[in-house]
Amino acid sequence: MEDSKLVRVAVDAMGGDYAPSEIVKGAVNALLHNAQLDVTLAGDEKQMEELLKNMDYPTQRLHLLPTTQVIEMAEPPVAAIMRKKDSSIVQGMKLVRKGECDAFVTAGSTGATLVGGQTIVGRLKGIERAPLAPLLPTAKGPVLLIDCGANVDARASQLVQFAQMGSIYMENIVGVKNPRVTLFNIGAEEEKGNALVKETYPLLKELDINFTGNIEARDIPAGGADVVVCDAFTGNAILKMYEGVASVLLSEIKGAMLSSAVSKLGALLVKPSLKKTLRKFSVSSYGGAPLLGLTGLVVKTHGNAKAIEVENSIAQCIAFTNAKVNEQFRDKMHLVDHTKPVETRQNG
Amino acid sequence: MEDSKLVRVAVDAMGGDYAPSEIVKGAVNALLHNAQLDVTLAGDEKQMEELLKNMDYPTQRLHLLPTTQVIEMAEPPVAAIMRKKDSSIVQGMKLVRKGECDAFVTAGSTGATLVGGQTIVGRLKGIERAPLAPLLPTAKGPVLLIDCGANVDARASQLVQFAQMGSIYMENIVGVKNPRVTLFNIGAEEEKGNALVKETYPLLKELDINFTGNIEARDIPAGGADVVVCDAFTGNAILKMYEGVASVLLSEIKGAMLSSAVSKLGALLVKPSLKKTLRKFSVSSYGGAPLLGLTGLVVKTHGNAKAIEVENSIAQCIAFTNAKVNEQFRDKMHLVDHTKPVETRQNG
Repeated sequence: MEDSKLVRVAVDAMGGDYAPSEIVKGAVNALLHNAQLDVTLAGDEKQMEELLKNMDYPTQRLHLLPTTQVIEMAEPPVAAIMRKKDSSIVQGMKLVRKGECDAFVTAGSTGATLVGGQTIVGRLKGIERAPLAPLLPTAKGPVLLIDCGANVDARASQLVQFAQMGSIYMENIVGVKNPRVTLFNIGAEEEKGNALVKETYPLLKELDINFTGNIEARDIPAGGADVVVCDAFTGNAILKMYEGVASVLLSEIKGAMLSSAVSKLGALLVKPSLKKTLRKFSVSSYGGAPLLGLTGLVVKTHGNAKAIEVENSIAQCIAFTNAKVNEQFRDKMHLVDHTKPVETRQNG
Repeated sequence: MEDSKLVRVAVDAMGGDYAPSEIVKGAVNALLHNAQLDVTLAGDEKQMEELLKNMDYPTQRLHLLPTTQVIEMAEPPVAAIMRKKDSSIVQGMKLVRKGECDAFVTAGSTGATLVGGQTIVGRLKGIERAPLAPLLPTAKGPVLLIDCGANVDARASQLVQFAQMGSIYMENIVGVKNPRVTLFNIGAEEEKGNALVKETYPLLKELDINFTGNIEARDIPAGGADVVVCDAFTGNAILKMYEGVASVLLSEIKGAMLSSAVSKLGALLVKPSLKKTLRKFSVSSYGGAPLLGLTGLVVKTHGNAKAIEVENSIAQCIAFTNAKVNEQFRDKMHLVDHTKPVETRQNG
């Protein structure tokens, strides 16, 4: 925190299936690979110290924030955030709220992350709702699905902001020039859809983004868009159908390949090429899902994240802070900002 | 039509990629395999006669209804139904409305089928909306997804009827005893979801069906339900994600298998087992999607349907009529029916 050029990331050491060991390992690797990074690990002090004592890392850029509570995956999120004041999620997010960190990474409860993001970190002035925006693999590179979070009964004005934030994020963090922003719908024609998308479509046409119209579900895995805008109910359906169909199909294919001696031999021969292809379609290959529109970045990575995903998520935070994405949100989205904004503390 | 035991099905000979040849062939095969069936083919007289002149079929049970117009896939449905009065879809549906046929099968425009079903065939008294309900393959047999049709801004009372109709359909037509009826949601807990599903959940609990609670998208392909109830916007997302993910994944896997000489050899060896598995997951394996709650049955089969799908769709109509599904709807759903119902003309 001494150096004003450092990007300061708080990390929830206690969240996820492989916490704290894989989380700590991921944080240390991130520090070793990024001289510009400063990490604060929030979690059980003894466990963290035990893990760190045999590791080599830049001690002056790694801080421990001892916490005594852990929010479990199955806990009702609102109650958990309110009651577990000394949990790693609440304490980690508080660092972002206070401006002591630029971003927060967790592999813990999605619900608690969504609630804490809105109530502890807080939204940028002028942002109506903070969307959760995972990257999904497609045949032609990743697509940002915005929103998959808590906004299940979204309004058109919120979807408009999702489209703007998604466009800026994809351009700056994923490096897609002039990203194709689409509205999720049940047909390509403008007059199709439910009341929400019918109201949203003309508003998106007026924005200063590359809005390419409606997209049908079928065209998402094929790579028909860089950004897909939708309410969180629909986004959740899209995201989880993706995971569900891929998982069932691959397990059936695996079963078929192992069903006879001949096919087992064949499976051995196709395995190397197949592995390469399937890695491309792994939903977990893109670090974590950003919760956007907050006064700092919150990244939710998978519950089964290992060190590499944690490191990728921290790298996302560095890119986000360096690219001053929040300042771009404020400037390009013409967000109304009456008070002295908290969101300008990036790099500083 | 002479025999009161005949099930009378009108078939759109002009709809679909392989019309009229595959449609006519499918209808003839259905007649050959079902002595109880009577078919009226609606379409271009010359083309139908040309196809039939070299075929063997029971002439007294096959009738031609000459029509001069065809509704194309891309036409705006409402305008098409209103203007093309002599189209095969409009004329075929009129036979059902007039009680001269029990059911109508088409591989043509889904939009025109939905509009025509509501406006020409008409709903059963007491049915609020007619849902389109395709069967999807899962790891454990088919699941009925109801609704994927035109009801994109559905109300809770409509979803309640969808649940009841879906349960009766699965039990009678697919033969699933006491089908597990679920509500599509973004989580398993009762308090989750958008306003619509929160309102619907307690209503489904009170029904005399086997309501097993919410289902998440991820659990659909795994076979977690026999019936999934949702609005048509969500249903469309689920259906088309299914098709889209499966299609992209399989084409990538195929590409990987053909990418080297070694993997090509492997592909030859795994092919037989793989083919069997993938056939199970073909979305088109279950004939057509019924449009339920009408005064007769309308079945929409795939645009790329060949003779076998057409025959399967006609068989669906026979099962539906014989099981008196519409009468069960009326009795078990306690539909209010003031006038002399048109829906009781099954088998008669």
